[in-house]
Parts: sequence; structure tokens; C-alpha cells
Amino acid sequence: MPPKCKLIYFHAMGLAEPIRYLLAYGKVEFEDCRVDYEHFLKIKPTMPVGQLPVVEFEGKTLFQSIAISRFFAKKFNLLGKTDEHQLSCDIVVDTITDYRLHFKDVHFCDDPVLKSQKRERLIIETTPFYLSRFETLVNTNGGFFVGAQLTWSDLYFAAILCFMESLLQRNLLDGYPTLESLRTKVNNLDGVKEWIASRPKTDL
Amino acid sequence: MPPKCKLIYFHAMGLAEPIRYLLAYGKVEFEDCRVDYEHFLKIKPTMPVGQLPVVEFEGKTLFQSIAISRFFAKKFNLLGKTDEHQLSCDIVVDTITDYRLHFKDVHFCDDPVLKSQKRERLIIETTPFYLSRFETLVNTNGGFFVGAQLTWSDLYFAAILCFMESLLQRNLLDGYPTLESLRTKVNNLDGVKEWIASRPKTDL
Repeated sequence: MPPKCKLIYFHAMGLAEPIRYLLAYGKVEFEDCRVDYEHFLKIKPTMPVGQLPVVEFEGKTLFQSIAISRFFAKKFNLLGKTDEHQLSCDIVVDTITDYRLHFKDVHFCDDPVLKSQKRERLIIETTPFYLSRFETLVNTNGGFFVGAQLTWSDLYFAAILCFMESLLQRNLLDGYPTLESLRTKVNNLDGVKEWIASRPKTDL
Repeated sequence: MPPKCKLIYFHAMGLAEPIRYLLAYGKVEFEDCRVDYEHFLKIKPTMPVGQLPVVEFEGKTLFQSIAISRFFAKKFNLLGKTDEHQLSCDIVVDTITDYRLHFKDVHFCDDPVLKSQKRERLIIETTPFYLSRFETLVNTNGGFFVGAQLTWSDLYFAAILCFMESLLQRNLLDGYPTLESLRTKVNNLDGVKEWIASRPKTDL
């Protein structure tokens, strides 16, 4: 029987990796369908809003990577136990997105001089701004982002870091021991650990 | 007794308006605190990630406008009845955000020639791309975005349109009768209607 879940994305970690982490954690077998850019341009008009990742699950076509991540998080009891914890997870994930958009800004900058300036600013200004706040938050929450227990915000953080670090070719968590420890915890979770060991090696 | 909810934002609709719509719908009295840019720069270091809107609610400081909107949506039974409906609401809101980011791109463009080009493209390309999809979606869902009934995605859409239309100085829903009808429904909801009648008039 084929897997009932198919994830379509580029040959990259990128925005799909949090979904892959969650599916691996939840032991959901999925077809990890990777397309090159040329093929993407062919299928783009058939995608709901012309973007990837797209997930086919139980006969439905899901899109928007964070919405999909939250959906699977609920299935695997990672949403946060109370309304307040769920709100806190959403705040963390949306703040990670704010941080991530700076990486997108560097990646898609065509002007080499400007790109270098943006990259430098991302490393010396933006990264400490966000990571110092995250470090404090995780420190005050017993080693997790929310409620002193594992939630999807922890998996989201560890997974989205993959391509961000690849893009900058550096360990972003140097100097943030609590975040590094959280990442290690997530990457050693049953399911996630096996996923990381077996996943294709990619640049982003 | 002072209101137990305080919303801090600029003197604008912007990203705060969906929260204001939701609070008005839920009949939650709130202090609508509006700051000018000079004052914002003073309080910015005290804001969780240096951004607005921020909501003070029951002793907690909430940030990230969509996370806050979802939190209040749950309180007022607007989250969507099933897991699938909740996912659909999240997909809609995140897709509205993709669309909205094009407005941000125009608004913050410093080069007048480039700004004019971006504005033109937003009107003739991006807007039909998103709104035609939304029109079809609402048409197939009984006049609402999700599940043939009112959810926070409907309120979010009507509220976020306010500043987007102000920015372009045009009715974006011309030619999208189902979306226009949905907006009219939302703007006539008990609570929302009174909010719109009484809210300060602003440019954005």
C-alpha cells in the first residue's frame, strides 16, 4: 500500500523540513517527493497558490507550511496543552518566521555588494537580536520554548534552522547553549533521529 | 474599572485591525492605545521583539498579530469546528499574509520609479491572482471562506483589507461579488458594525 501522505517540495530542507520532522516524529510514512526547479515550473499552475511545499493527505491538498505543521502537531499532541500554551507556540513560530525572512532577503538579493552587507547584518545584528531572546525564553521554560515540555515550536525551530545554517555556512547556536541543548534534544527524538540519519544531503 | 485588555499600535488600521474586529465581535472592551512613530521608538526596546501590535490581556503581554487573532478567535468560537476547518482557516489567513506582503513591499519602497512599477504589478497581476482564488473558494463554501459558516478567516480578510485598500486608494473587491458580499456580512456583524462606525479615521 502506498503511503497515504505525499510531501512535494524542492530538493531541499527549507520550509518542508519542519513538516518532515513532524511526520517522522508522528511515525507517519510519507512519500518525500522532490522536484527540480524546471519541473516545479511545469506543476506550478496546478499548485493551489503556485507555491511549495504542498502535502497530499487523506485525499486533500494542503498548503502553507506553518498551517500544515500546526495541523500535524495537533494530531501528535504537540500543540500545547492550554489555550495559552497554544498561543505561545504560535507566537514563537511566527517570530521564527520574522527571523527567517531575513535569510530569504539575503538569499534572493541579486546585487553582490548589497547581499554581502545584508549577510553581515544578519550575522552580527539580526541573529543575536532573535537568538538571545529565544535563549532567555527557553531558559525560563525548563529547556523548551513553551510550558516546560515538548511542543511543535521546538521541532519547528530545530528543523527550520537546518537550511538557515546551511545558507550561512555556520552554526547559528554557538554562544546559545540552552538553544543548542534544545536542538540536540529534538534531533534525538524517536523518529526524528532516524529521519536525520536517512534524509538526503542537500545544500539548503 | 479599566478595560482588562489594552491594544498598542500605531494610529492606523494595519495589522491591528483584525484584532480590533475580533475584540469588537467578542464584545471585549479594550483600550485602543495609538502611538505615533516618535513615541514608538521610545517604547520599542520594551516591546517583546520591538514590534507592534502588542496586546496586554489578563496580565500577559501578547504579540504577533495573527497568533493573537487566533487566540481570540478560539475564545469567541470562530476557530472552525473541526481540525480540518481549523487548518483551512490557517491556510486562508497565511495566504492573505502572502498577498499582504506585496503591499508592504510597495509601501516601503523608496525608489519612486520602482515603487510605481511594483504598485502597478500589485494591481494588475498579484491582486487578481489571489482574489480570483479567494472568490472561487468562498463561492464553493456557501459564502464563507471555510465550512459554510463564519470563522475568524472571514473577519481577518475583511479587516486586513481596510489598510490595503487605503494604501492603493481603491476598492480591491470590484469584480469579486462573492468577496464583496462576504465583506458586507462581516462589516455588519453585531459588534463589528459599531466598531466601524466609531473607529478613528486613519490613512492606513
